[in-house]
Formats: sequence, C-alpha cells, structure tokens
Amino acid sequence: MGEFELIQRLTHRLPTNQSVVVGAGDDCAVLDLGAPDRLLLFKTDAVVRGIHFTSDTPPEKIGHKALARGLSDIAAMAGTPTAALITIGLPQKFDSAFVEKIYSGINALARRHGVAVVGGETTTNPERILISVALVGFAARGKVLLRSGAKGGDAIFVTGELGGSLAGKHLEFEPRLAEARWLADHFTVRAMIDLSDGLAGDLRHVLKASGVGAELLQTAIPISRAAKELTCSRPRKSAERPPIHVGGDSPLVAALTEGEDFELLFTVASKDAVPLLDAWKKQFPGLKLTCIGRIVAGHTLTLRDKDGVRPLTAEGYVHFA
Amino acid sequence: MGEFELIQRLTHRLPTNQSVVVGAGDDCAVLDLGAPDRLLLFKTDAVVRGIHFTSDTPPEKIGHKALARGLSDIAAMAGTPTAALITIGLPQKFDSAFVEKIYSGINALARRHGVAVVGGETTTNPERILISVALVGFAARGKVLLRSGAKGGDAIFVTGELGGSLAGKHLEFEPRLAEARWLADHFTVRAMIDLSDGLAGDLRHVLKASGVGAELLQTAIPISRAAKELTCSRPRKSAERPPIHVGGDSPLVAALTEGEDFELLFTVASKDAVPLLDAWKKQFPGLKLTCIGRIVAGHTLTLRDKDGVRPLTAEGYVHFA
Repeated sequence: MGEFELIQRLTHRLPTNQSVVVGAGDDCAVLDLGAPDRLLLFKTDAVVRGIHFTSDTPPEKIGHKALARGLSDIAAMAGTPTAALITIGLPQKFDSAFVEKIYSGINALARRHGVAVVGGETTTNPERILISVALVGFAARGKVLLRSGAKGGDAIFVTGELGGSLAGKHLEFEPRLAEARWLADHFTVRAMIDLSDGLAGDLRHVLKASGVGAELLQTAIPISRAAKELTCSRPRKSAERPPIHVGGDSPLVAALTEGEDFELLFTVASKDAVPLLDAWKKQFPGLKLTCIGRIVAGHTLTLRDKDGVRPLTAEGYVHFA
Repeated sequence: MGEFELIQRLTHRLPTNQSVVVGAGDDCAVLDLGAPDRLLLFKTDAVVRGIHFTSDTPPEKIGHKALARGLSDIAAMAGTPTAALITIGLPQKFDSAFVEKIYSGINALARRHGVAVVGGETTTNPERILISVALVGFAARGKVLLRSGAKGGDAIFVTGELGGSLAGKHLEFEPRLAEARWLADHFTVRAMIDLSDGLAGDLRHVLKASGVGAELLQTAIPISRAAKELTCSRPRKSAERPPIHVGGDSPLVAALTEGEDFELLFTVASKDAVPLLDAWKKQFPGLKLTCIGRIVAGHTLTLRDKDGVRPLTAEGYVHFA
C-alpha cells in the first residue's frame, strides 16, 4: 500500500466537531475558534535526515526548510502565520551546537515573517534527526483560499520557475506569504495550492477537489535554469539525494514532476488574467508570474504542444506517447 | 549537555509577537488570536518506539498514548482541546493494518473528548515508528491555569495515585480534562501542571515558575498499587522498557520520580483545601484527591516524615541522608 492509499484510509472517518471548517485534505486545516473576523489555520510538516535533507546540509538550512515548508502551506490558504512549535527528534548523542544552528535557521525565517516560536519538544529518535513543525495562523473569514474552487475557463497561474529545486532552492526558498495575501486582497482567486509534490501532482489535487480538468500549454511552463542544468548533468552527486519522483530526463518533466518548488499555483476567472498580470508586475517585479493553461470541464489533465494535446496520465508523471 | 540544558539554550531568545500570552515553558503555549472570550492553547507531543512504547505495545494503545499525553497538557491549563494533527513517521515497509490500529486508538480517545482529527502527515522515519501530535484548544480568558501562580501557604493537591505507570497506566490513562475544568470553574486554583516527569520534578517546575518552595508530607503521598508491586518484582521483563528515571527501589521513590503518571498537581489557598476536598468527593467519587503538602517561602523542596524534614536535592531524584 502506498502513502496516498494509506492516507485515504486513515482520513476516511476521522473524528470531527463544530469547529472544523476544513479538515484533512487541503494545505491546512481551517478551524472556527470564535474570533469574529478570522479563521484559524493549523498545519504540521516534518523533515527527516536522508529524506528531506542530507548529512551534508548546513544546519541553518535544515531549520529554514523545516519551517518554510509549513509556512508555504499557510501561504497557499492566503493566511498569516502566527506561531510555531518545534519538535526535534535527536540521537542520544547529539552535537548541541548543530542543534542550536538548526534553531538559528528556524528563528531567522520566523522573525522575517513575524512568527513566534512558542516552544516545542526535544525527544529521542536514535538513528537520525527529525524535525516536525506545527503552525497556527489565521485568514480573514471569507478569504481562505481552498483547493476546491477552480471553475471551467479559469486561467491557471504559477509563481516563479519550476524544477531543479534539489540543486539548492529546496533549502533556501522563501514562502510566498506576502504574494498570496496580496492576491487574495486584490483578486478573486478561485483555488490555490503550494507546489510541493510537483506541478502535475499538485494541479491534480486542485482538479480533484474542484471536480474539473485542465489543459497546460507546454511552451508556457516556466522551467528553472537549475532544471535545465540538472537534467544535463545526471547522475547527481549525493548518494543521499532525497527520493523525490523524477519521471524522466527532460527539463520539462523535471518542472512538471520533481516537486519541492514551493511556488504558488492558483486559478482566476479568465477575465481577470490580464489585469492580474499587469498588477503583479508592478507589485512584485522580481518574481515571475506565468499563465500556464486553463481549467476545462471533465477530469483530465492534458498538455498541449506543437504536435497537439496529450494526456498526463499518472500521479505526477508524464507518459509521452 | 543534557536535554534540559539544551532546551534552556534553545528557548533563550525565541522570536515572539503580540499574539503570545505564554511562550515556551508551561504545559501549553497560550496565544491571543482575537476571540473575545477565549485564548488559544497550542501543544505538541511525540512518542517514539523504544522510548515511549515497545515493539510489544498494542497499536491501539500507542495511538491512545500519543494523543493522551498532549490532552493531559491541555488539561493542565484547564483547557478544552479542539483539534489534533497527527504526524506519523514510518519505515519504508510498514504494516498498514498496524498503522490503522494506531489511528483507531487515537480516534477513540479523540471522540470521547470531542477532539477533531483534522489531518496531519505521514513521513518516512526508516528505523522506527514516531508519532507527533499537535493540538489546539482553548481556555476562557482569565481562567488559564499556569505553573507560576503558587503562593506561600497554598495546599498542594494531586489527583489519583502515583508511581508504577509503566505497569500499564502510561498506555491507558485518561487525561484529566473534565476534572481540570471543574477545578477552574469552582475554585481559585493558583497553579497547575500535569505529572509527566515525576512528582518531584514537576513540582519543581511549579516552584521555579512561582518563586516558592514546598514541603511534602511523606505519609500523604498516594502511592499506586503498581508502584508497590513493581518495586518488589524488579528487574522488569522487557528489555525495551522506556528509560524513565527511577531513583531508587522504594514505592515512595517510584511515586516521587518515575513519571508518566499524567495526574494533575495543583495548589489552592489553604482556606479552600477542605471545601475543595468535600466538593471533589461528590463530583468525582471514583478518583482520589490528596493534599500532599504545602507551598512555603524560599526555593527548597523538602519531604517531612516521622524523623523530620529532609531535602529532595536533585531534579526528580531523592537523596536520603
């Protein structure tokens, strides 16, 4: 049984109560805890040595990534993070300076985004460092962006460039919190998600939640320089490379499937697409925003190139004809 | 460097913001997120195979313990838990039925206490199962019970019986949520904590936070039958026994130091002690409540027996003269 199937079984009949606005299955859980104008966002995310970082990774970057992943999920709901609890599992003999540097990375990122670190826990995980970050935040009532609002005809946008994150970005990315809040404040964003599993996989989450399909335009997909360079210089150097899916060797496949991009993917009504692009360029001149396709009726995800339209058939993978 | 010293260094200068009412160092973090009558409680707690449970532990009990520990911390603030996120680290080859049974244990306890399970994450922890539970809850403004309010002359109470938790209770205890809320609703509780590190160690946390000392009455300490039986039948059977501090072989030392009791320790003004005991017996006839001593000026923790008063000198340990 794979991870997705297990999660489906585990989340099938979870206990719930009146506070739950959105339970398992979106970027964050959304709770109503009685604040008149706000809903609570609640999220955890863990990183493990050998899976999400290597023994070579500088500790400050481990800390940065551990917190940044969850902040990216808060961003995907157009939320504002408030506070974090840090759980760190350590071997019985640990290097305290190393652990302090992990916290330096966490704290520096937390300060930049106004997040309080309000404690947590150290526990023993004998064989390897594991860091789990729990986050609470909030979003204005009526402005929480879910995965489920995409509609046929919507334009699909992504921020930044995709693929090749393992070359370094996955340890250094800045969560798109300001960008997401600006989007929610100025446009009617229909659906949003952060890209952690790869464009194809994450877009599928949006399509499934919204009950729609999508057509991507191959030439529009913003491929990072790192994806282009990496796919020309395989194999990679570290034996402990995180086991992120890679479905092929082309930069396009890297951009579609590698994951850990931590960019925003969202949809708006087609009439808003051009005004959004214009306003974005003024607001965030240093960050690319690209329309990569459109939402369509049905349930399929397709890719259009110069030869026509072909389906993206598997979860996060591209099967070329 | 030990765990406590590391935690002190890590929590020395944490990022904060205006939402923080209580940061690191109490049973839960307390946040003001704008609800007019409520404060948010925020807590994480992790259990690891070989540390907090053994490979023999039935999976339902693993799940129960994973959630119950954090609920006990919510209880210690007289709070009401609202929602949980479950992070589970699994070896690459895992038994999905086993994981589902862990969730059964979590879900059964969650349902009993009205807690919603709103998602979480599965991740890879190659060598052993690790479960981290993040919790949010709330307490009425003005009724959050901290460790820091004990005053000279206060009577010190504990619920239940102490010691010997490893014989089974640590996997089956019911968090004292209803009892704690009843206490906060009906009496002026000055300070409260849940007993996870052992009576002596946890009482020290209260004393340090409150700037006071305490004198315990040896004959009053409620020692569990399990503590009496266990201390007569060492060594224990499992090689994987959790490494909880045990400072000696007597049932008294077990009750003072073993930990994982998950009972409540709290103080009230001495004038409230008798009315509290009377009301408690009517409200919770099945659960013992014992006055075990009193708060005194100074900073020392002492134990009074028939021969006089002797200091408890070390963190969670008793050194007899």
